[in-house]
Amino acid sequence: MADNARPARPALLGQNQYGKAETRVVRITRDGATHHIKDLNVSVSLSGDMDEVHYSGSNANVLPTDTTKNTVYAFAKEYGIESAEQFGIRLARHFVTSQEPIHRARIRIEEYAWERIEHTGEGAHSFVRRGQETRLAQITYDGSSWEVVSGLKDLTVMNSTDSEFWGYAKDRYTTLKEAYDRVLATRVSGRWRFNWTGDEREMPDWDTSYRETKRHLLQAFAETYSLSLQQTLYQMGARIIDHRGEIDEVRFSLPNQHHFLVDLEPFGLENDTADAAVYFAADRPYGLIEATVLRDGCEAKIPADLTNL
Amino acid sequence: MADNARPARPALLGQNQYGKAETRVVRITRDGATHHIKDLNVSVSLSGDMDEVHYSGSNANVLPTDTTKNTVYAFAKEYGIESAEQFGIRLARHFVTSQEPIHRARIRIEEYAWERIEHTGEGAHSFVRRGQETRLAQITYDGSSWEVVSGLKDLTVMNSTDSEFWGYAKDRYTTLKEAYDRVLATRVSGRWRFNWTGDEREMPDWDTSYRETKRHLLQAFAETYSLSLQQTLYQMGARIIDHRGEIDEVRFSLPNQHHFLVDLEPFGLENDTADAAVYFAADRPYGLIEATVLRDGCEAKIPADLTNL
Amino acid sequence: MADNARPARPALLGQNQYGKAETRVVRITRDGATHHIKDLNVSVSLSGDMDEVHYSGSNANVLPTDTTKNTVYAFAKEYGIESAEQFGIRLARHFVTSQEPIHRARIRIEEYAWERIEHTGEGAHSFVRRGQETRLAQITYDGSSWEVVSGLKDLTVMNSTDSEFWGYAKDRYTTLKEAYDRVLATRVSGRWRFNWTGDEREMPDWDTSYRETKRHLLQAFAETYSLSLQQTLYQMGARIIDHRGEIDEVRFSLPNQHHFLVDLEPFGLENDTADAAVYFAADRPYGLIEATVLRDGCEAKIPADLTNL
Amino acid sequence: MADNARPARPALLGQNQYGKAETRVVRITRDGATHHIKDLNVSVSLSGDMDEVHYSGSNANVLPTDTTKNTVYAFAKEYGIESAEQFGIRLARHFVTSQEPIHRARIRIEEYAWERIEHTGEGAHSFVRRGQETRLAQITYDGSSWEVVSGLKDLTVMNSTDSEFWGYAKDRYTTLKEAYDRVLATRVSGRWRFNWTGDEREMPDWDTSYRETKRHLLQAFAETYSLSLQQTLYQMGARIIDHRGEIDEVRFSLPNQHHFLVDLEPFGLENDTADAAVYFAADRPYGLIEATVLRDGCEAKIPADLTNL
Repeated sequence: MADNARPARPALLGQNQYGKAETRVVRITRDGATHHIKDLNVSVSLSGDMDEVHYSGSNANVLPTDTTKNTVYAFAKEYGIESAEQFGIRLARHFVTSQEPIHRARIRIEEYAWERIEHTGEGAHSFVRRGQETRLAQITYDGSSWEVVSGLKDLTVMNSTDSEFWGYAKDRYTTLKEAYDRVLATRVSGRWRFNWTGDEREMPDWDTSYRETKRHLLQAFAETYSLSLQQTLYQMGARIIDHRGEIDEVRFSLPNQHHFLVDLEPFGLENDTADAAVYFAADRPYGLIEATVLRDGCEAKIPADLTNL
Repeated sequence: MADNARPARPALLGQNQYGKAETRVVRITRDGATHHIKDLNVSVSLSGDMDEVHYSGSNANVLPTDTTKNTVYAFAKEYGIESAEQFGIRLARHFVTSQEPIHRARIRIEEYAWERIEHTGEGAHSFVRRGQETRLAQITYDGSSWEVVSGLKDLTVMNSTDSEFWGYAKDRYTTLKEAYDRVLATRVSGRWRFNWTGDEREMPDWDTSYRETKRHLLQAFAETYSLSLQQTLYQMGARIIDHRGEIDEVRFSLPNQHHFLVDLEPFGLENDTADAAVYFAADRPYGLIEATVLRDGCEAKIPADLTNL
Repeated sequence: MADNARPARPALLGQNQYGKAETRVVRITRDGATHHIKDLNVSVSLSGDMDEVHYSGSNANVLPTDTTKNTVYAFAKEYGIESAEQFGIRLARHFVTSQEPIHRARIRIEEYAWERIEHTGEGAHSFVRRGQETRLAQITYDGSSWEVVSGLKDLTVMNSTDSEFWGYAKDRYTTLKEAYDRVLATRVSGRWRFNWTGDEREMPDWDTSYRETKRHLLQAFAETYSLSLQQTLYQMGARIIDHRGEIDEVRFSLPNQHHFLVDLEPFGLENDTADAAVYFAADRPYGLIEATVLRDGCEAKIPADLTNL
Repeated sequence: MADNARPARPALLGQNQYGKAETRVVRITRDGATHHIKDLNVSVSLSGDMDEVHYSGSNANVLPTDTTKNTVYAFAKEYGIESAEQFGIRLARHFVTSQEPIHRARIRIEEYAWERIEHTGEGAHSFVRRGQETRLAQITYDGSSWEVVSGLKDLTVMNSTDSEFWGYAKDRYTTLKEAYDRVLATRVSGRWRFNWTGDEREMPDWDTSYRETKRHLLQAFAETYSLSLQQTLYQMGARIIDHRGEIDEVRFSLPNQHHFLVDLEPFGLENDTADAAVYFAADRPYGLIEATVLRDGCEAKIPADLTNL
């Protein structure tokens, strides 16, 4: 900060970032009558030598957010979108290397998946949105080092058995009954950090990595006989660390979507799990289990709160 | 209405209905280690001899909404959930036949689909929510006749070509350029009414009907070379009427999810559809195309507005 | 429909409508340094001679939805926005009278209220959005007659006492305990239809009418000692009919936002209403009470379902 | 972590926290016929000696999330809710001091404001939800030191003039035209950290602090002639630092809710700001401006991302 920028008051500027959020870019590529879609929501955050714009309103160092939006569209045309991660890397490098006052760029991307509609007509240019999880990518570049964090949100999973919860601490406010066969359901929000940090190392194959990481977390969820959602969370993260050498850190935020056995005794009905059981799927409140799983010797960098509650 | 119920003021009671909305019931059935899920959101609406509760607050004719909720859970246990439609029929019949003051019951159901997580562990009791469309069913019974309307919402589809829009009316406020190769995308909201109206006729196979109806509407969307979204809508409805004899009426509400070609000329880039094109996916405003397609000779009964805008 | 338009298949076109939904228009008027805001969300729906666009894709009768959007903006500039209702009337008349194939126009408007930020600086051009209810207006014109329905949504109200619920019907699924002092809370969705139907009659003062109608419904909610939410609903509607001669019909959709007394006995605490009571505010399920209140001798025209559940 | 807990695999547990999220508690206090409401959404997050539950599923150290929910309700009854901050302090102290394995508690609270319905009936127990901003409080306690961060979200404000944007950096992707009289609108999300850190110091008056802080940020927004949203943000934060000695740090996340002047030239209309101007209120994309303002000499502790985009 130039001395003349510093205000004669006790209030000083701290960390700051700006950019255009949620630019919705769709790129359609034609291979004859066969088309391909990439459908992204791109948010750009830039930081750097930005004291003056805050203190005096001088925009001399400010590349407009409108320009960052234009850049997203132009790059989608010029360079294509091989993967969300590669697209983000290209954008981040551009902002940091082309604008001297910008020292750091963070690109966040949501990707929506489409699958083909099966039909007997000509061509292959009809699609239906999968609608399951949203794929996430975050790329941060400070001019020398890279951090890539991928992830997903809104992947809802359920085990209808093989889950227990007992042996917990009790105090005067504890009324919960121990459970030996319960439903375990959650809407997975996960992020995983790659150990790729620079241009000289070979990049992971981002799409393969995503597909396999999602497969591992789903299988770990399915195959873990669970004594607590924390245990399941750890198994999901550990399985990724075990199998995906390109990933050093995983963080999950898992709301425990409670399915309560309905009390049907007043109606002369036994609602146990022997044959068929009826549950009330509750909205709020819900348990919220959050943790990082880390490769031995690595440092945790993913922030604690993936959601705001 | 008893005469003594009628208030000595000019304000009279008109159509009314009440019940418990959005009871979230999940039923899990065990076939050994293989489990099956039905996941519903059930809303009950009852009408009948309800003047007194409005005029004087006497609840003598009011079965509490809490009871309608309990009934949903108890019936899920006692009778199972073969399909949303059959479950709704059972509920509607129960309320109308068991409570003298209740003359009409309407059951609305949302159904969420789950698919199995593929894994190598034992058992088949792990699921991931499909997350694509939400299946809908509405069952209405007045003591003598049935109306079943099924449908879906939030099924997002896109044709990346084979869509044009030109030759339209123009006035002094028209600036739109004609389009000869555009993206056509929409989030389908549809309802279809069955001609089954009573107990003596054989019921349709509700699940087969749903699966085939969805297939037909997707294929009609994909295979129609479109000159307007209205034309596509008609083809989607007509194909259902042509192929599904159990359905007499279809209504669609189709928001035109505009994908605008981004103007990249200022950056020296030609953004045409020859090879690869970049679009801005807009949120609001959006065209909204709504219409009924009807079997010749049948009467339209599905209300005009599937959404509230 | 021209005979040649009718398709050689059993599927015929029924009711249909189209237009641009959710055009977000903000108009700011300057009276020196004092500014005024109107902030609307306008949805246009047009109907008429539209068979060909559905059957063959001919757009000759179709004024583009893009044009209806442009018209909203142009009219906001040319004629101003005196009230949502008057703005809608102007738009509806324009579409029906200027485009021969269009026989009916329906304009739906949401209006967001802003209040001034109190401060000591110069000028009066700083605002904060009120954020309470959303005001609604719907104007329908078929070339000869008008229908104006105004309303509101998302007005959340609560009586913390003076509400009971007992004496209701019971069956084998009834477990609810009678309540003699409960919380009554709801998120009001209401619509009211004016008896103004044509140009020759003097229009109501729409803003005064809205303000007074909202006041009456709030006061009726507050002043009714309630034995059921249906009774409260009727009192709210009847008070409007009693006091607002320009209104012939009112419809409410009132979700019963249950506040359950928490059972604190396990902790040795008596949670009664004598002094201070603690409630769990539930999300789902909820009772849903819907009814029309009508001026004696008038016909009901507002559709039954204000919401889609 | 006990040595036997550490798994024989490279995946280790990192930061973790758990608890019940979004417990919706409403407390109604009676002062004769005058009632008072506190309406909160409380989320509890606990951390501590939790390795075993992740590694082996042993719940011995886990106080159930159900118990944390019960505690919220019981404390609301036993101790009342003077303010969100004091309620959170009481809860945090309880969890850390009563459960040996729990070393840190973080309580997040949303508070919804209600105002009285004016009416002529007896009593004062009828309320309407204000519906403007949501008040926020976060209390963190690690057994020795306290951190209290308060804030708000969804406070939407607009200046209809006194905002410019020009003199910015330009590159080949810049097309934005400079603006000398634009609308500046944003939906304020803010957090402010108190310098109160322990029991021995006198606590701030939380409600007065909230009311005054909100007033200062609104007035700074209104009274700043803005050359950039960053400048406005700094003024909002600096004014709080200047006037509220109990606050050391403020962070804002301000989406720039673009209001674009509509091009009405094609319709022969001049849409300038001289008299009355018509704007399109855009949804996405939007500029997102985020920064911390800090008291000189203090350390920043509020995380960078208040929202997840």
